[in-house]
Amino acid sequence: MSSPSPKPLTIWCNAKFSDDVSRQLEEGVGALGHRLVFSEFCSASVLDAGKPDPLLATADVALGQPDVAQCMSLPALRWIEVTTAGYTRYDREDFQDAIRARDGAFTNASHVFAEPCAQHVLAMMLAFARQLLPSHRDQLSDRSWHYFERRYDSRLLNGETVLMLGYGTIARRLTELLAPFGMRIVAVRRRAISEPGVHIIPEDRVSAALAGADHIVNLLSDNETTRNYVNARRLSCCKPGAKFYNIGRGTTVDHRALVDALESGRLAAAYLDVFETEPLPPADPLWTTRNCYITPHTAGGRRDQDAAIVRHFLENLAAWTRQKGGGMIDRIV
Amino acid sequence: MSSPSPKPLTIWCNAKFSDDVSRQLEEGVGALGHRLVFSEFCSASVLDAGKPDPLLATADVALGQPDVAQCMSLPALRWIEVTTAGYTRYDREDFQDAIRARDGAFTNASHVFAEPCAQHVLAMMLAFARQLLPSHRDQLSDRSWHYFERRYDSRLLNGETVLMLGYGTIARRLTELLAPFGMRIVAVRRRAISEPGVHIIPEDRVSAALAGADHIVNLLSDNETTRNYVNARRLSCCKPGAKFYNIGRGTTVDHRALVDALESGRLAAAYLDVFETEPLPPADPLWTTRNCYITPHTAGGRRDQDAAIVRHFLENLAAWTRQKGGGMIDRIV
Repeated sequence: MSSPSPKPLTIWCNAKFSDDVSRQLEEGVGALGHRLVFSEFCSASVLDAGKPDPLLATADVALGQPDVAQCMSLPALRWIEVTTAGYTRYDREDFQDAIRARDGAFTNASHVFAEPCAQHVLAMMLAFARQLLPSHRDQLSDRSWHYFERRYDSRLLNGETVLMLGYGTIARRLTELLAPFGMRIVAVRRRAISEPGVHIIPEDRVSAALAGADHIVNLLSDNETTRNYVNARRLSCCKPGAKFYNIGRGTTVDHRALVDALESGRLAAAYLDVFETEPLPPADPLWTTRNCYITPHTAGGRRDQDAAIVRHFLENLAAWTRQKGGGMIDRIV
Repeated sequence: MSSPSPKPLTIWCNAKFSDDVSRQLEEGVGALGHRLVFSEFCSASVLDAGKPDPLLATADVALGQPDVAQCMSLPALRWIEVTTAGYTRYDREDFQDAIRARDGAFTNASHVFAEPCAQHVLAMMLAFARQLLPSHRDQLSDRSWHYFERRYDSRLLNGETVLMLGYGTIARRLTELLAPFGMRIVAVRRRAISEPGVHIIPEDRVSAALAGADHIVNLLSDNETTRNYVNARRLSCCKPGAKFYNIGRGTTVDHRALVDALESGRLAAAYLDVFETEPLPPADPLWTTRNCYITPHTAGGRRDQDAAIVRHFLENLAAWTRQKGGGMIDRIV
């Protein structure tokens, strides 16, 4: 359990926000009686690892992407909120043990990104169903009018089966968005606890589930157990003509095996938002593999991202100080 | 009221289906005790106007796109089902009066196309929100990685306002698909009868509604009152940055005014599936107007279209013969 101090806290931040949003953060922190300091090493990309910063040693709370080793070396730093949903750098036993030992907290910004990520997956599923990208290619090239071809390749999502690899905040929201389509929704998760609207299966039944899925949505984060999870063996279990979507992490997919599955026609299409190396190098075969569609890690993007991150942090800050950490959202430790 | 004959009917068809689906139609008609004849002038496009056909003179029922003047000249032809949702050619008082005078029926295939059309609109809305087409253009051109630009241009549908021009079968289904997004849904319709989940407004309030809409979905069919409905005056009422979608008919939009609204930035994007001339000529400025996205009249497309049309017709045939026309769906006369 946490037992936060009632005295004013120093909150360190290394996320680069717009002036407006920085002011919202400053005012929100001030209204709760605390003090905000910005690192001189700020990054506008929430994905970048922060540099060690002497200023962090003065802080009770960190918001952004603080350096992991430095966080571990500062016992006075009690709560860390990262500005991303993924937290691979912090997904280490020694880091999390150190936070627990100081009776601290570690939170991510999962709820900020769940809504755009879920909408992004549905956008990709419908783009396939309605053949939007092939039609756009026609528009950009010879302006040909493939009425019959596109029309008969168009389809409905109704009655199809979705398999989600991983079932957390994003998946739960995606299930809500898919409800009106009358699809069958199956998900693989370590903890086989049932949830509304979805059939949760344990990991040892994934091969059979892949064989029955029209849409495979990869939501896996990066860790030792998920690396190369979508490999040649699992891809060979897929129903011929299945569609694959990845908004989890690039490291969870063997991309050479994925290219093979697309070239052979085993998969009808892949929609990829995350890659082992980002930006995806221009020479990477994924760019030109047939029926492989790329977005540049934008699934979590939302115009109001920074304002939403600040709202999320301020709500957690109120919970941390007033309710002694009870009621914080997206708490991992 | 209709009073169909109990004796075997001759059903004429000028739609070209696959062999499988033709057999389904033949067997279904036979199982109900009737006889099927195919015109020798069949078309695989449901949009084509059929030629006059001597064989139609032997028929009690027509399925497809029969010639309008010939239908009017044949009083023994009691029921006509067209294989489309649009029915401009048949939307004439003289035609409909002739059907009424013979105590007949006229139906369209609206329910076959409502589901794909509603999914197509949502696909276009989400493609905009998630910037899928600009990202695909990058993939097809220089493989550049616009992480910041695309991410901050990405948005959520939540809380935005949709204005539907027209509110029928497609719009009703679209309202269901949009329910989980928590949008405000407004629709303009001649008959101002309230419906669940939507705020119906009369035509004289459309200017104010345009000023408040983030998404304008044109579902208008072609007739004297709708031609050039979306004109320069109405476009000048739009909220700056609004998105426009057209899956109604091309004639309901003044495309020159639309190009101006896109070029000036008044509209942020247009997604068009229908045009005054189809195929859209390669020299048409719509192909290259910025933020204008074209699909080749595919909104109603579904792989199982022909089978769905035949199911729709056979259900109506059962209702026509057994229930004297009661319970027919998509009945216009």
